[in-house]
Order: sequence, then C-alpha cells, then structure tokens
Amino acid sequence: MNTGELVELGQQLRVDSVRASAAAGSGHPTSSMSAADLMAVLLANHLRYDFERPAHPGNDRFVLSKGHASPLLYSAYKAAGAIDDDELLTFRKLGSRLEGHPTPQRLPWVETATGSLGQGLPVGVGIALSGKRLDHADYRVWVLCGDSEMAEGSVWEAAEHAGHERLDNLTAIVDVNRLGQRGPTRHGHDLDAYARRFRAFDWHTVEIDGHDVDAIDRAYGEALSTRGQPTAIIARTLKGKGVQAVEDREGQHGKPVPDADEAVAELGGPRDLRVQVHEPPSARALHSVGSGQTELPRFETGDEVATRNAFGQALAALGTARGDVVALDGEVGDSTRAEYFAKEHPERYFECYIAEQQMVAAAVGMAARGWMPYATTFAAFLTRAHDFVRMASVSGSGINLVGSHAGVAIGQDGPSQMGLEDLAMMRAIHGSTVLYPCDANQTAHLVAEMAGLEGIRYLRTSRGESKVIYGPDEEFPVGGSKVLRSSDRDRLTVVAAGVTLHEALAAADALDEGGIPVRVIDLYSVKPVDRATLRQAAEETGCLLTVEDHREEGGLGDAVAEAFGDGRPVPRLIRLAVRTMPGSASPDEQLHAAGIDAESITAAARLLVEEAVVA
Amino acid sequence: MNTGELVELGQQLRVDSVRASAAAGSGHPTSSMSAADLMAVLLANHLRYDFERPAHPGNDRFVLSKGHASPLLYSAYKAAGAIDDDELLTFRKLGSRLEGHPTPQRLPWVETATGSLGQGLPVGVGIALSGKRLDHADYRVWVLCGDSEMAEGSVWEAAEHAGHERLDNLTAIVDVNRLGQRGPTRHGHDLDAYARRFRAFDWHTVEIDGHDVDAIDRAYGEALSTRGQPTAIIARTLKGKGVQAVEDREGQHGKPVPDADEAVAELGGPRDLRVQVHEPPSARALHSVGSGQTELPRFETGDEVATRNAFGQALAALGTARGDVVALDGEVGDSTRAEYFAKEHPERYFECYIAEQQMVAAAVGMAARGWMPYATTFAAFLTRAHDFVRMASVSGSGINLVGSHAGVAIGQDGPSQMGLEDLAMMRAIHGSTVLYPCDANQTAHLVAEMAGLEGIRYLRTSRGESKVIYGPDEEFPVGGSKVLRSSDRDRLTVVAAGVTLHEALAAADALDEGGIPVRVIDLYSVKPVDRATLRQAAEETGCLLTVEDHREEGGLGDAVAEAFGDGRPVPRLIRLAVRTMPGSASPDEQLHAAGIDAESITAAARLLVEEAVVA
Repeated sequence: MNTGELVELGQQLRVDSVRASAAAGSGHPTSSMSAADLMAVLLANHLRYDFERPAHPGNDRFVLSKGHASPLLYSAYKAAGAIDDDELLTFRKLGSRLEGHPTPQRLPWVETATGSLGQGLPVGVGIALSGKRLDHADYRVWVLCGDSEMAEGSVWEAAEHAGHERLDNLTAIVDVNRLGQRGPTRHGHDLDAYARRFRAFDWHTVEIDGHDVDAIDRAYGEALSTRGQPTAIIARTLKGKGVQAVEDREGQHGKPVPDADEAVAELGGPRDLRVQVHEPPSARALHSVGSGQTELPRFETGDEVATRNAFGQALAALGTARGDVVALDGEVGDSTRAEYFAKEHPERYFECYIAEQQMVAAAVGMAARGWMPYATTFAAFLTRAHDFVRMASVSGSGINLVGSHAGVAIGQDGPSQMGLEDLAMMRAIHGSTVLYPCDANQTAHLVAEMAGLEGIRYLRTSRGESKVIYGPDEEFPVGGSKVLRSSDRDRLTVVAAGVTLHEALAAADALDEGGIPVRVIDLYSVKPVDRATLRQAAEETGCLLTVEDHREEGGLGDAVAEAFGDGRPVPRLIRLAVRTMPGSASPDEQLHAAGIDAESITAAARLLVEEAVVA
Repeated sequence: MNTGELVELGQQLRVDSVRASAAAGSGHPTSSMSAADLMAVLLANHLRYDFERPAHPGNDRFVLSKGHASPLLYSAYKAAGAIDDDELLTFRKLGSRLEGHPTPQRLPWVETATGSLGQGLPVGVGIALSGKRLDHADYRVWVLCGDSEMAEGSVWEAAEHAGHERLDNLTAIVDVNRLGQRGPTRHGHDLDAYARRFRAFDWHTVEIDGHDVDAIDRAYGEALSTRGQPTAIIARTLKGKGVQAVEDREGQHGKPVPDADEAVAELGGPRDLRVQVHEPPSARALHSVGSGQTELPRFETGDEVATRNAFGQALAALGTARGDVVALDGEVGDSTRAEYFAKEHPERYFECYIAEQQMVAAAVGMAARGWMPYATTFAAFLTRAHDFVRMASVSGSGINLVGSHAGVAIGQDGPSQMGLEDLAMMRAIHGSTVLYPCDANQTAHLVAEMAGLEGIRYLRTSRGESKVIYGPDEEFPVGGSKVLRSSDRDRLTVVAAGVTLHEALAAADALDEGGIPVRVIDLYSVKPVDRATLRQAAEETGCLLTVEDHREEGGLGDAVAEAFGDGRPVPRLIRLAVRTMPGSASPDEQLHAAGIDAESITAAARLLVEEAVVA
C-alpha cells in the first residue's frame, strides 16, 4: 500500500477498535489506537501470511505481546478478511472467539496466549529459534510490545537470549505510548531509554515516530535487511491517537472511549479497506522428520539408579526415535541429565542459561511450531516460570516440563534448592498431567508416555539413587498406579510416590514382620489419579496413609483426597508430608527429620491400627 | 588493611572455604575462591558492621546473591570473629547454622535467604530503597552477584528499579569467574558485556581485575563517592583461583576440591587473621514512629462494596495508625486500590511498575529492615513472583501479599487475568496464612489482622461489588470461620468464601424454601482452617459441599479435605470448582459456566440430598 492507503488503513483499525470495544462495553481501544499505524503497515506491506492456512510452514508469525490491545488485532483480522464485521462486534461476549486477550485455543492465527505482560517477546524468541535452528525456514517473527511491559525482567531474558543467538528473523516493535494502566510509564517518551537497553543486549535498534507510516515502512525494511542481530523498533506513539477526548490522556486505559459515535466521526468514519496480505514463501515442515521405534533404556531390577539419570537416558532415546523432540535446560543440564540428550542431539538442544521464564517461553514457541519440547531445571526453580506455565495452559500448549532435585531428599543443599511446592503448582494448572516416578524403568516409560499427552505435562525426578523395582517391560499408563503389597488382611494402605515409595515398602516389610499387613500403592500418576484403585483400597483397608516429599498442601495427599471428592463415603485419610523448614543434612537425615522415612511411616501406621482397634 | 594484609586475608578466606567444604564433603569452594579477594577488601576496608548488633540501624547491609558461595561468607564471619573455627567446620551438617545456602532464620547477619539465583540484587534494591526513602540512614548496601545469574530477568528488573530510583547507596559486585555450573557462561570474561547492560539501565560501572586488591579497594571507593547512581563493579576473576587443580577449570562446580590438604598448602597454609570491621555510624530506627488506634473504614450492611475497595481503604487507615506500614504495587494500583494508600501516604508508597518479582523482593528487603510491607497486584500475576515468595518463606520474612481480581468473577477480561491458581500457590508456601474475605467489613478487619502475623500472609480480593453482610464490629480471627446458616435439621453444609459465599447464601435460601435446610460456612481463613467448625458441621450434617472460584486443586476444597486428615472418620466431601478454561463473558455468565453459582450449588445440593435418601 502507498502512504495514503496506509494512513487510511490505520484509521480503519482505530475505528474498528473503537467500535468493537463500544459494542463490548469494555476493552482497551486506546492501547489499540496507539499501535494502529504500526499494525497497518505491517499487515499491508510486510507480513507474509496465509490466513486460510495458519499452519503454513512459511508463514511469518505475529505475536501481540500487549495482549490487551486485542481490538487492534481483531480489526486487523477483519481488514485481512479473516473475520467479518459481525464477528468483530461479538468481542468479549460469551462464546465469541474474540476474547479480551487473544488465545490460540479459539483463534487459529494466534501463536500464543497473551495478557500477562512480558510474555510475548520470550515466546517470539522461541518461535524465532525454531525458525533458525529447527525449521530452517526464513519466516519472520514480529512481536508487538507495549512500553509498560518493558519493566518485566522476562523481556530482558528474551532480549539477552535473542541478542546472543543473533536472531535476525525477529523484530520487536515497541509501542511507546507513554501511558501505562495507572499513569505515566517510567520512561515516558524517552525512546532512547528503551533503545540503549536493547542495544546493550546486542540488538539493532531503530527509533521512529510510530504515526508516520513511511517511517514505519522504512523501519520494517531496515529490520528485514539487518543481518546477525534482532531488531527493536522503538516507536513514539500517542495512546488513544486520533480521538481528542482520550489522546495522550491519563485515566483512559482499559475502557471504551466516552462517545464512540463521536470518536468514529472524528476518525473520519467507518472504512472498509481490505488488505491483500502477502503470500508466505513455500516451505516445508521438518518436525515430522525422523522416526522409528523408541528403544528406551532398560535397567536391571535391584540396581541403584537415580530417576534423573533414567530421564536423561530416556529423553536421548526418545530423541533418536522422534525427530520432533527438542530439549531445553536452564544451565543445569549436568544435574537434570538433559546433557545426555545434548550429547546425542546437539542440534535440537537449547541452553537457556539461568532464565527459567525464557526457557518455558521458548518451549511454548517451539510447541507452537510443531516441535515436542522437554524443558528441564530443578523442580524448585520451575516456580520461577509459574506465570509462563499458567499462560501456556491458557494457550493449550503441549509442553513437557521436568523438575529434578525434588524434595528434602536432595540433602545438604538446603531448602532453597528443594522442590517442595512443585506438585501443588503443577496440579493446579488446568489440564495438566503430573507424574512422579520412583524407579528408573518407570521413569523411562513415563518420559515416552508424556509425548503422547495434551497440555502441560510435568515429570518430577529425584537427585539420589533408588532401587530399580520394576522390570523394563512393565507398563505405566498415565492415570494408573501400582499395588506393590497387598493381601486380604491389610490393615491400612500406604500411598506413596517417588522417594517415599521406597520408604513405604521398607515400612510395609517391617510392619508385616510385626503382624500388621499393609497395602502399598505407588501413585506415580499424581494427576490424573487412579480413583478406582484408591477406592478399592479404601473399601478393603478402611484407611489411607499418604506419604510425600512435598509440602502437605497441594501434593499427593490432596490428590488422594480429591479422589474421594465424589460424594461417596470417604475412608480415613492421614498424611505425612514436609511440615517444617529443612536445613542442611544428609538425605537420610532429611527424610527422618521431615517424618517421611520408613521409621516414621511404621510408627504412624502402628498408631493408626492401634487406634482402630480401640475404636 | 594494606595490600599485603588484604592479599593474605583473601588467601585465608580461600583456605577456610576449602576446609569447610572438605569437612562437609560438599559445597561450592571454587565459587567462593573466585570472590575471596572481593570479599576480603570489602570486609576489611569498607563494610561498616557491628557483628554483635546485627539489628544496628546504621549497619551496612551485605547480601550474598550467589548464595552457593556460602563457604566464603562463613569464612568471612570467622575472620570477623563472629563464628569460630569449630563452627566453620560444621558447615552443611545437621543442626548447624551454616547451611548450604545462608538463611536469616539461622544466622542474624544474613539479610535474606539466597540460593535461588537472581534474587539477592532485587532484595538489595529493597533494602537500599528503605535506606533512602524510609530509614533516611546512610547505610550502604553491598550485593555480591555471580555472573551466571545475570541471565535471570529479575536482575534486570532490579537494575531498572535501582537505576531509575538513583540508588547510590547500592553497589553490585559481579564476580565474573566465567564458569557456571555446567560450563562457560554466555559472556565468559567479556566484562563489557555486563558493564554496558548496567550502564544502559543508568548505573555507574567499574571494570576491574577481581584479584587485584588495590584495584578492588579503589573500585569500592569509587562506588562510595558516586552520587545519583548505583554502581556495578564488574570484576574479572578465576573460579577456583589459587589452586591449580581447579582454577579456571570446567567440571569443578559444587564439589570439594580434589585434595584439600594439598590445596591448603598451595594456598600457603592456614592463617588466623582477624579483621576489625569498621563500626557503623550512629543511626536510629524510624519504623516504630507513628502509632495510634486503627480506625478501620466501616461499611453499612446491605451496601454493595468491592472487597478490593475495602482493602484499599483499610490499608490507608492502617498506614495512618502505624508508621511502619508501607505499600508496593505493580503498576495496577488503580485496580488493586493500593492507590488509596498512595494518596494518603505517598512517602511510604512504592510504584514497582510491571515487575512483580522486584515488587516482592523489595517487600522482603523492607521487611528485613523492620517495615511492614503490603505488596499488591492481580492475583494471577503474583504467580510471576512465586519463586520469590518461596524464598521469602525460607527467609522467614514477614510480608503481606494481596491479590486482586480473583477468579472467573472478573468477567470479560478472560483467563489471562483470572487468579485461579493463587490459593494453591499460597497455601503450599511454608508457614503461610491465606485469607479470602467475602465482604467489605471482613476485608477491613483481615487487613489489620495480617500485620500481626508471622510469615507470608496472603489476602485475596475481588473485582466486583458484593453485599456487605457483616457489621463493622464483627471480629474475624485468623483460623476462624463464620456459620451463616444453621439449624438442627441441616441436610448438608456448603463451605464457601469470597464471591461464592454469596452464591452459597442464595442457594441456601432457595433450598430452604424447597424444604432442604443447609448449613453455610464462610471459610474466610483458608489457611489455617477452622477444623473444629468443619468437624462439627460434618458430624451434624454428614456431607460438606465446597464451592470455590479457583481450580479444584489446591484451594478451598483441598483445605477442607485436609481438615479431616487426622485419621478420624471423614464426612462425604464434594467440591464445585473451576474445571474448564474460561473465555470472555460477564461475571454472572462466568460463575454459571464454571458451575459455581447459586443455581449450580442448589442443583448439586439437591442431588446429594436425594442420593443420601436413596442410600
């Protein structure tokens, strides 16, 4: 489009943003209006995208990091012919695809859910990494950011990663409209404040007037021709641009303009420009390349093997069988054993350094491009990426997360390194799967199982060695469990997983010798949970004792309690969990101090059985 | 100390780091040795600290952001006479104060627990802010950072905040030893890579050889004399410096040196230098200034008031009564209503912009200095700071967190803005308190109650208005509940809190009209939970139905289930919670779609009562 047409298109996007928000009675028109010209020029002159084939491997990728500017995005969809005006006016209504913040669950052209600020650029980095290192395609990734969200550290994790990886297929467009939700941003219209930060992280930068369509056009061209560096376009804009009642004024965030009809008139009235978006270049999807039988590692029963080691070996094997498997780690691959994958498949391994938010975001970006990511760090440090995991679930993203060094069992390093809240965090994620294996063969099978699931899948691994108790051909369906000790005289059931499963077995043996037979269930699938087996154990033994190397809230104990949340009679439930703040000590000392070792289980079981006798 | 003595002191710190780690059989001596000269010069020539009076208001504050270098810290304590050699050799043993990563729970000289990287500098910013804006004292804050942790976005949130606030009382010392856990860092020994990033965030920077004690001494002096800017000292060092077997070598992270005796000999043998640390200047604590009766806002029963509004008013009132109350917000103060506090107490209000990690870290820093922080953002966005909340609990920090816009009840904005996992996250934090009020008077009382508690306290507020159902003089003890509907004929008990409490009351009225009396419990204290009242309701009505605007995992339903985790008989438990991924819709539509409105409660209750009849 030429200058005049671009100006008109920008005004149309403003008009439609105003109209959509007015119809909804809520929304963010002013945040849309500031970026309307930036969007118009991108859509008309630079984006290469087939709206009828959103999965086209050659499509450029656009991420609206300032997700609240959704009216602008939907107005652009309308201009591109992807939606019609009637649908535009369903914005924010029950059942509409056009949500307050865009999600790929509803709209095929959305790469990732946004609305929690500072997440679009990190995910964009993941997509750009895919383009460079996995897809080997020359699509371009465009991310429209707000200026307020530049305060989020995740933006600078992304800047660091992209700068270091020289992602010249990535362009960040920063809409510097000076006003956040509550008032002026830290840097107002000081474009250089943003530019010099990006430059420090080795980006190319361009500062422009974000309402000068020719300048915008040139800036996009400069981004496209810049080699060896990502580009940040820092654009000075006015929030609410074009409507005097709101333009550059405080107190106009997140609400319709006061008088929509007047605003539309002031903007020159409705238009119906239709953009012919550039076709994407031909490309082919590579992620289905490579396949074959997965030859999982096999471990001898009785051997002592850390589940983190089994994870590493299994992931490497899975990577050999499946060409779509990629691994990401937060600079602890020697601990998580992701390094086993790195050694065999360096081309599909991504070192994310100590930046867990960027790591998870990169996984989301790669999953959006069809890859099967496994992202690993200490279970404790996945809490750093909680909001990214939450948003990944809003996206419906299919990613695998693996947290090592779970629980007090890590020993001397102390509480800062102990994953004690990870099960609670991961269970509460919508649609998640939470797995916690106790031996090497089980781990290997679950690593492969994860790849076949939907949504967020979490695997919890342990630092120390534990005995291999299952044969290599045993199967471990997600949602299942294993009953490892059972008789028709069982006085109670001990439910455990991971490191405490071994303590439970030792306790069961001691109790059995003392004339108290108990059932032991290995609840390796913490979510979904095996309700049927738990129900049967409850009916047959009357009492369930859960034992977990985790806080008492949100973990295994709660998962078991939920299994009885169907209104039917509930057995007696007792839980052993980590109730104190651990210090440094050996793994055995830690388990004992937390009251989750075999001795503690034995004592608790005795007490319960005796109580039952008294009762 | 002079040059020769400083060199000797550095060697002593290395020797003691090697010895402590050797005695423990684990630990991070090489990460300690790189920073030994930086620590020696600071301790001997610049730090002003009274180890016998760690609470002295004039003390400088030292934060070991690279917490794994704890052997260095403890060796410095020994050199300062704070601990003796016997205690040094208890490092990482059960019961020792000298944990793998330092915590203030055990050691009075530690400002904040570290060990999750990238957290020390943000907390240091909080302490420096206290010094400048609250304590009005001229103590200096020194933060020793690792180079690996520069990849964490939280470091740049801190850099941004400190640069913008011109915190010239803050010095970051970056120990650029080139090697992370797994291998080389992103930037190796490229000091300028770090320096230009800090400069971009408006810091003064000094690049030095981190093993040249005179250069270090001059750099500290330059930091002290720099006005209007924080200073970052970027120091080139060698990991494992001084012991050839490990110096600058990969694969030597996080383990004792191979031969400790040989290493000690190579370092010139043990020394017993004792440092006379400079006395702090006189100063007085200001945070106890201002006090009086808290005149909480009073709301008329029957009025419609959003609990977030009541929170804002109550916090402002509390701030008037108590001079130690400070408020921090993540650039959404107009939504959380923290702005009410800001208007009345601007000198104690901290705008943290959209940087939730820095916000929580600043609160931790201020709490360490004796202030009573309330930090607020949307409940959903507190997930961004999960790891900081976790570490705050390791610190034993006393901070108040308030999450607004809880649940699907926010309406059109959609799932990205809905706090649906916050109760699960906060409940699993060790020693936390979790409160969820349903009306304005209850909110006001709980805001004041929070200040008297230990540990992490969380208050969940709602966006929309709700009816005031309690009088302004009603009391709401933490750990209590309110029974709002009760008869001796109750067929079941509905347990709710916040927005669903009102739905529960409406359902109870409808059920009562239909001849089914039900009990209603307002479980405003989600943790600790009122076991006695729940137990009594269970015994008297046989069945508890929980209803929550939260995911089914980790929230109210689990809290109630845990109340019955003592091995005694359990009632029938059923839960209504948010089980789908919401889209945009009105608040009422959202509650209905999630199955947690009055109609859903009524239907579930009918079904349960009928089932009980059949059974």
